[in-house]
Amino acid sequence: MLVVMRDQASRDEIDHVVELLEEAGAQAHLSGGEIKTIIGVIGDRETVYALELDGLPGVEEVIRVLKPYKLVSRDFQSADTVVRVVRGAIVGGDSFAVIAGPCSVESLEQMQSVARAAKDAGAVILRGGAYKPRTSPYSFQGLGLEGLKMMREAADEVDLPVVTEVLDIRDAETVAEWADVLQVGARNMQNFMMLDELGKMGKPVLLKRGLSATIEELLSAAEYILKGGNRKVILCERGIRTFETYVRNTLDLAAVAALKTLTHLPVIVDPSHATGRRDLVVPMARASLVAGADGVMVEVHPEPERARCDGPQSLDIEAFEAMMADFAPLLRLVGKDARVT
Amino acid sequence: MLVVMRDQASRDEIDHVVELLEEAGAQAHLSGGEIKTIIGVIGDRETVYALELDGLPGVEEVIRVLKPYKLVSRDFQSADTVVRVVRGAIVGGDSFAVIAGPCSVESLEQMQSVARAAKDAGAVILRGGAYKPRTSPYSFQGLGLEGLKMMREAADEVDLPVVTEVLDIRDAETVAEWADVLQVGARNMQNFMMLDELGKMGKPVLLKRGLSATIEELLSAAEYILKGGNRKVILCERGIRTFETYVRNTLDLAAVAALKTLTHLPVIVDPSHATGRRDLVVPMARASLVAGADGVMVEVHPEPERARCDGPQSLDIEAFEAMMADFAPLLRLVGKDARVT
Amino acid sequence: MLVVMRDQASRDEIDHVVELLEEAGAQAHLSGGEIKTIIGVIGDRETVYALELDGLPGVEEVIRVLKPYKLVSRDFQSADTVVRVVRGAIVGGDSFAVIAGPCSVESLEQMQSVARAAKDAGAVILRGGAYKPRTSPYSFQGLGLEGLKMMREAADEVDLPVVTEVLDIRDAETVAEWADVLQVGARNMQNFMMLDELGKMGKPVLLKRGLSATIEELLSAAEYILKGGNRKVILCERGIRTFETYVRNTLDLAAVAALKTLTHLPVIVDPSHATGRRDLVVPMARASLVAGADGVMVEVHPEPERARCDGPQSLDIEAFEAMMADFAPLLRLVGKDARVT
Amino acid sequence: MLVVMRDQASRDEIDHVVELLEEAGAQAHLSGGEIKTIIGVIGDRETVYALELDGLPGVEEVIRVLKPYKLVSRDFQSADTVVRVVRGAIVGGDSFAVIAGPCSVESLEQMQSVARAAKDAGAVILRGGAYKPRTSPYSFQGLGLEGLKMMREAADEVDLPVVTEVLDIRDAETVAEWADVLQVGARNMQNFMMLDELGKMGKPVLLKRGLSATIEELLSAAEYILKGGNRKVILCERGIRTFETYVRNTLDLAAVAALKTLTHLPVIVDPSHATGRRDLVVPMARASLVAGADGVMVEVHPEPERARCDGPQSLDIEAFEAMMADFAPLLRLVGKDARVT
Repeated sequence: MLVVMRDQASRDEIDHVVELLEEAGAQAHLSGGEIKTIIGVIGDRETVYALELDGLPGVEEVIRVLKPYKLVSRDFQSADTVVRVVRGAIVGGDSFAVIAGPCSVESLEQMQSVARAAKDAGAVILRGGAYKPRTSPYSFQGLGLEGLKMMREAADEVDLPVVTEVLDIRDAETVAEWADVLQVGARNMQNFMMLDELGKMGKPVLLKRGLSATIEELLSAAEYILKGGNRKVILCERGIRTFETYVRNTLDLAAVAALKTLTHLPVIVDPSHATGRRDLVVPMARASLVAGADGVMVEVHPEPERARCDGPQSLDIEAFEAMMADFAPLLRLVGKDARVT
Repeated sequence: MLVVMRDQASRDEIDHVVELLEEAGAQAHLSGGEIKTIIGVIGDRETVYALELDGLPGVEEVIRVLKPYKLVSRDFQSADTVVRVVRGAIVGGDSFAVIAGPCSVESLEQMQSVARAAKDAGAVILRGGAYKPRTSPYSFQGLGLEGLKMMREAADEVDLPVVTEVLDIRDAETVAEWADVLQVGARNMQNFMMLDELGKMGKPVLLKRGLSATIEELLSAAEYILKGGNRKVILCERGIRTFETYVRNTLDLAAVAALKTLTHLPVIVDPSHATGRRDLVVPMARASLVAGADGVMVEVHPEPERARCDGPQSLDIEAFEAMMADFAPLLRLVGKDARVT
Repeated sequence: MLVVMRDQASRDEIDHVVELLEEAGAQAHLSGGEIKTIIGVIGDRETVYALELDGLPGVEEVIRVLKPYKLVSRDFQSADTVVRVVRGAIVGGDSFAVIAGPCSVESLEQMQSVARAAKDAGAVILRGGAYKPRTSPYSFQGLGLEGLKMMREAADEVDLPVVTEVLDIRDAETVAEWADVLQVGARNMQNFMMLDELGKMGKPVLLKRGLSATIEELLSAAEYILKGGNRKVILCERGIRTFETYVRNTLDLAAVAALKTLTHLPVIVDPSHATGRRDLVVPMARASLVAGADGVMVEVHPEPERARCDGPQSLDIEAFEAMMADFAPLLRLVGKDARVT
Repeated sequence: MLVVMRDQASRDEIDHVVELLEEAGAQAHLSGGEIKTIIGVIGDRETVYALELDGLPGVEEVIRVLKPYKLVSRDFQSADTVVRVVRGAIVGGDSFAVIAGPCSVESLEQMQSVARAAKDAGAVILRGGAYKPRTSPYSFQGLGLEGLKMMREAADEVDLPVVTEVLDIRDAETVAEWADVLQVGARNMQNFMMLDELGKMGKPVLLKRGLSATIEELLSAAEYILKGGNRKVILCERGIRTFETYVRNTLDLAAVAALKTLTHLPVIVDPSHATGRRDLVVPMARASLVAGADGVMVEVHPEPERARCDGPQSLDIEAFEAMMADFAPLLRLVGKDARVT
């Protein structure tokens, strides 16, 4: 850690900072340039980083050079984490995982129809929402447990694993009974109690980036889960909130390439939520693939115009199949393996 | 609702939209300008608004003219909601409520020291965090139940009510035993399960605006609580995330003035989290007062430089007292009542 | 245009709006739902859109359904505009144009070295800055006219056209003497006088998106140039400013796909400025290619670590050649034509 | 400057950085913690800061501890700069300057009406746009030179100075003939050629913050003008672009308080552009006053609903007079001097 003092910092102000550092058991090394004094700090990382020196008289800036996360870092583990889900689904490493399904589970028939299409076209995990986070209390909130059961039945018929969101920490156990991958939604990325809880469970976790979360905050959220003992974490870029309103969110594809250098965890992209517009889903899915993503999660619905949620960003089955056909040569080119037909 | 068709929308595309609308029991009224066809829709609001017509062939834009909230609106209730907390504390109407206390509860002595200062200077509610949401799992996470008890004891000694954050929905009952106002933190503003739960409880709720939540989303979150039956909701502007990095967040003071016109609920400001810098807290608190806020919540610590959390944005007791003295003539000017000495 | 009245709008307020509309020669059509009155407006577009009705008593919102641009729209011209630069360089249509060169012109040798590499690897235009916009007045501001001449000489030796930024409208003529494509930098995207001026000149214009410009504002800026009579406009996405600080800007790749549907103008991507980080340039260039961009502009420097500007985001010649080799099979896949070897 | 090396930086990578530093005439001081090596750099500031070391192999981050500006800094000059305009108008120090007038000059009568009201109520400078920057080429672009003359005549009649925007650098001399303060609009904040030019002129400059400009960038822009020799610079906060769409821009009032600590230049607020909504202008003007601003610039129009520009954010004369009356006691309270009646 470095403490940069103001140009006019007095001797007393500098001494006071040094005193606080030493009180905390750290060593302070002063280096005075012509204009500024900078205090280098060495000591126990957590103790030192917990010091609240910013804003003290004479202090201009406190610079923390170590990252706030460890276990998720490529420095800690250089080899890619490969998350092995049940039924042969793999996320990370040399595979490219396609996750497909509707925004929300609406009926058994709907799920069966999507599940068959997903399986046939080469998707490896079925998605669907049973508990839906909705901005307005007057919007459809999902079928709950009944939805979970429908999705499970449809997935079992085609032998696919299932991913779904845990919206309420009190439902985590129930959801885990019916699903194979537990999703943390964007609005819950910093629900630290939920991260703690999922860290203690054994199931793979799909962690979505928050609407205004930095890359560092996403990695810190994942750190909560790994620190709890669960290393099966898949990160998901799903668009961030910016001033641009033409799209629902702004897909931050550079974050995917950046994450691949910063962490060993697999990183997938959700182009459906990132754009909110059907016509942008396929180009962004293609772009994700060649930018190094480990997979994509796309919304597919047999009848998007009659969907109860996110219809405008859902592909119909034909468009989904076309996207998958389109992926095949790209995957061969980048040397990735997928069940894509 | 209005459906704006593309310039080149075909007859078939228009007919298909009308068909979907009628299928949902709504009436469609076409008005064709020279360039565009616009379809006006009349029907049951929730059914109509749930339709997923954006992105359909020929559809350019779907415009929802009704707000996604009702109960919180000034159109629904024109008179100010006045939230009466225990022990005579009032938020809303003609009063100006000052809430003060440290970021986190650290010891009984610390809380007693702040509680006395808060009471003496005219604050009406004591704040303090027992369960802390922290970006990094390696940061201090709060004293939990022990912290709640310390805060309660300190508050009782000076006869002040207490506000504290409910971080985990499973702790809501416990927190409600020890606290008088339940705070929903910025990261939980769209934790809809928690909003539902607090809607069923009788205690006043302090709802903080999310880091990237729009004014409309904040009001929709409050709507969840009112819809559940609890009308004692206090809104809190605490800064939003923008590109500017000099401050911790960007205080959106215009949102306070806007909220006062859109909703009958009281609106307070947290200038400590909004700025993250001690030297900006007082000017922003003053500005909030004259801009129409119903109160402020400020972080006060007996020794900010030794705080375990948010030291850089905490006022020491002397600075807090000076701020309160500074408030008195401003309050007289705006005709607001406060216990400020 | 539609004027949405507040729920409680009075008869007088509605009448007053109608009166103002009729005063301006427009027709007003009232449609009263149960809750709201909406006024549909028909009349001369420019007159109607210039009316300042927002904020009038009783007015909730004014919705302008027509786009603020015409000539750049796909509705106006459905076929792709193909910009033909001199010496056979083509931007738009079936070609994929690579533009390469250093951030700033530093010496003839530097330009010759990059020009040869660019030409050999298949780039079709040489870039380089002679007049540099720099945040600080103490940074290197470019070599000016001398720089233009060096770049011209180097480009001529390998028979490539040249693109460079017009920083000062007073230099436009001079720059046009030495360059083949005139670049409008992100900070000048809304320098309307410059857009007007370039609209009157015959040379192709490369228009970069502003740091916080919406897609609609970018198209409106291009409209200025087309309105002036110059239809040779190339749009360039170069990253927008968001809260994320890991990268220099946030590449908005979805905007590229969106622009391709909204306008007939060619759209290229500058992954160097968009990311500011060398290791992210190639993945983002690849992603741009498959997302439908008509080209990329990348910074290449013989010795990035000794560059006088933007070294951290510049590729060295070897990395540039590798990127171009990497492009070849992708281009074959998407059926785009490029000189890439 | 500090160069933070990656955890795994090799000896060779560290040596290479040191070599580049020494090549540039700087001294490198290595300090190796357990995890990281940090290189402290001492040498000529401009040379050192121009080095492009970010992104080099082994380099994690380059930290520049000195600010990119000097002359505008409080460290350089601790006393407030007081800008003395002609006719007794003062901006900075103990005065509070109100600047008032319409968005655009439309007629002599309009200007006379506003000028009289402005003068009577205590405003010290008249504003008005003759050259208007408009997003769309189809919007009203201002009356140009004729507008300048009308504004001058109206101002002379009531003995007020005039501020107006220089939109095109080629018009700077002409504008300076007719106006007393030259305004740089938000879109031109980083039009460095214009800043250079205004730095050479003697007239006071009103520099508006760019839509997505950081506080540091605003100060760097002002530095251009001071470096050119003109120290009469007034900064103006006018809202920044964020995700919130209810308001036109987000007023960043904390930036005003922050600027007052960072620079000696006067700082005013434009609540009209910052909010875009008439009903928010007065509360934000009041808030600016108590937050420490040196003045406000507000749009006033005799008939806002018939304004040719920015009607929705313009006060009518009655509302303006009420605001000024409202200011008087606040000004007495903060000890500021104003001509406010």
